Amino acid sequence: MAGGGIGKGRLEAFSDGVLAVIITIMVLELHAPHEAELSALLEAGPAFLAYVLSFVFIGIYWNNHHHLLHSVQHVNGRVLWANNFLLFCLSLVPFTTDWMGENHFAMWPVIVYGLDLLLAGVAFFLLAHSLIRLNGEDSTLARALGSDFKGWLSPILYIGGIAAAFIHPYIAFGIYVLVAAMWFIPDRRIERLAGRDR
Amino acid sequence: MAGGGIGKGRLEAFSDGVLAVIITIMVLELHAPHEAELSALLEAGPAFLAYVLSFVFIGIYWNNHHHLLHSVQHVNGRVLWANNFLLFCLSLVPFTTDWMGENHFAMWPVIVYGLDLLLAGVAFFLLAHSLIRLNGEDSTLARALGSDFKGWLSPILYIGGIAAAFIHPYIAFGIYVLVAAMWFIPDRRIERLAGRDR
Amino acid sequence: MAGGGIGKGRLEAFSDGVLAVIITIMVLELHAPHEAELSALLEAGPAFLAYVLSFVFIGIYWNNHHHLLHSVQHVNGRVLWANNFLLFCLSLVPFTTDWMGENHFAMWPVIVYGLDLLLAGVAFFLLAHSLIRLNGEDSTLARALGSDFKGWLSPILYIGGIAAAFIHPYIAFGIYVLVAAMWFIPDRRIERLAGRDR
Amino acid sequence: MAGGGIGKGRLEAFSDGVLAVIITIMVLELHAPHEAELSALLEAGPAFLAYVLSFVFIGIYWNNHHHLLHSVQHVNGRVLWANNFLLFCLSLVPFTTDWMGENHFAMWPVIVYGLDLLLAGVAFFLLAHSLIRLNGEDSTLARALGSDFKGWLSPILYIGGIAAAFIHPYIAFGIYVLVAAMWFIPDRRIERLAGRDR
Repeated sequence: MAGGGIGKGRLEAFSDGVLAVIITIMVLELHAPHEAELSALLEAGPAFLAYVLSFVFIGIYWNNHHHLLHSVQHVNGRVLWANNFLLFCLSLVPFTTDWMGENHFAMWPVIVYGLDLLLAGVAFFLLAHSLIRLNGEDSTLARALGSDFKGWLSPILYIGGIAAAFIHPYIAFGIYVLVAAMWFIPDRRIERLAGRDR
Repeated sequence: MAGGGIGKGRLEAFSDGVLAVIITIMVLELHAPHEAELSALLEAGPAFLAYVLSFVFIGIYWNNHHHLLHSVQHVNGRVLWANNFLLFCLSLVPFTTDWMGENHFAMWPVIVYGLDLLLAGVAFFLLAHSLIRLNGEDSTLARALGSDFKGWLSPILYIGGIAAAFIHPYIAFGIYVLVAAMWFIPDRRIERLAGRDR
Repeated sequence: MAGGGIGKGRLEAFSDGVLAVIITIMVLELHAPHEAELSALLEAGPAFLAYVLSFVFIGIYWNNHHHLLHSVQHVNGRVLWANNFLLFCLSLVPFTTDWMGENHFAMWPVIVYGLDLLLAGVAFFLLAHSLIRLNGEDSTLARALGSDFKGWLSPILYIGGIAAAFIHPYIAFGIYVLVAAMWFIPDRRIERLAGRDR
Repeated sequence: MAGGGIGKGRLEAFSDGVLAVIITIMVLELHAPHEAELSALLEAGPAFLAYVLSFVFIGIYWNNHHHLLHSVQHVNGRVLWANNFLLFCLSLVPFTTDWMGENHFAMWPVIVYGLDLLLAGVAFFLLAHSLIRLNGEDSTLARALGSDFKGWLSPILYIGGIAAAFIHPYIAFGIYVLVAAMWFIPDRRIERLAGRDR
């Protein structure tokens, strides 16, 4: 158990707060149509679709963050900043979601959305590894993340999606949905190992 | 007590955060009138009425969520996602409230508002049952929810309200108010049983 | 210690969340001027003044809420709803603040702002008394609130302020500032008694 | 250990909530461009740059706040209000950030941004010293802050930056970035001393 070590409670509380605000303010970008007709609502369809995808992604990050922090005892300054970097990447999601939804999944917005997800994936990787470095290679966390299959596949898929957007943005969107679907089931490896240890 | 079991503290904290943001950002849709006259304020009446109803509904969901989680010890991945689904349904409330209020309780907005409430009711049902599945049929929660009268009546009333909106949206609105009134008193069954057990 | 009794932790957490959002989203109504001149900033002066007053009021309510809940052990359904009613009154503060600031402290906005504060004061009174009813007349809280001088003076001052607004809204504004100044020092009575008991 | 002493948990929770909302709602000011072109996105460059700087500053304040409160046991009414004053100064950051970004780092917005940072620095100083006063000159905190080099240098740099803005606002911006860089590494002195004491 290396490092000075400060309590993880406030890190979780602050992250919960930021993620709760991110996931909720996105709905403010879904402007209610001025007309009361169903057709007016359907025009908000692409923006709604982008909202659903981003809600699922933030939900996945919250779940994974929950699992990641659950299995560690200590955090330090490096972890705080890796966490802040992750929150920064995710704080841009309402912006990229809005741009993508408003422009009906046009090429550049879909690319920038994918770049943001890619950056968030890198930030999560940095956070996980700063936690392993602090809590030791033998920790529950290190063993659980040992063969982090999904963690490696996601950035490859994001890069593939971004490249595919130059052919057609809908292919990129389909790949992002695939990544979300892959992560939808929370990481049972950590949950199982944590259960075994206690 | 089946399942791996992870702490419920962060689930509550995250839900509190999301519900706190939802209940508060709705007021941002209540745009202050540009004129300083009382008549200008009265024009915001329908939007205000929609806000009050939604505030009460989110308050009810928070209270029921509080009671639901209070009586369980463990959550798992399934519970996390059932909870996320509930939060998603409720995150749309500011949108549907704004659409309904701005359009002075026109038919389609009132129907969509009811559909959102119906969906949230289904999500709460799924959350309750994923908790019972994890914590056992003999748990305090399972016994308390045993004859979940209001839980069954609410969706029937929502569907009735949605159907009634095709006759006149005000009937639907009246039925939604009725459901809110019915739930206003928090579920004393759980509270009473929890008190008896300790 | 009457009543079923459920944990107060989540009530505090939810209230903290709602008050944190209320106090912060008010700044969204302070629209940054489009010009980069200092004169453009000064035009936002009345809106800024209204923001400062409301920030202080929400801060006072948070402090008093902190002290109120600190000295009790249990909450029940009645307390939850009294608390929700208080949060509802305070959730309207961003709206009334915006209306008052945008209209440079005109009569009706100043009256409605005072009515909202009056309503919040009533809600706090109801919350305090539902807590006393649950925790007993002999509780630390009941003794501390025994001669609740400021709690009785505030509504009288609000009503005086609202009446004075019909003469000139600036008099009403001055009275609201007076109430804020009176409450600025947190209620040391509870703090002192709580310290004495331990 | 002077003073009545009330729990610090809710102070942290409320501060976390407010800082989480501040850091996140700033992104709402980053309006997604209406066109789907990359060039439209680049026009949002200055606003984005201002957002990044403010995100880092709020992150620094959260980290320092975390360290500051971590090493104390008790808070009192004076601490609550020093903390509220800090939160007030930081709540203006979304406003000053928006004004600075929208006006592409023009002179007055850059000056006002610096004044806000200066005020927040003063507020943090007041908070730290009200905590030392309550927890004693011999406390871990007092020793850690004993030679508070960065705490003294920051306001001098802010004042220098504000003065430099009259020559060219970009110099001021560069100095603000310097202060952020200086604080980026969280205060290891407290972390080290806290570790030594336990």
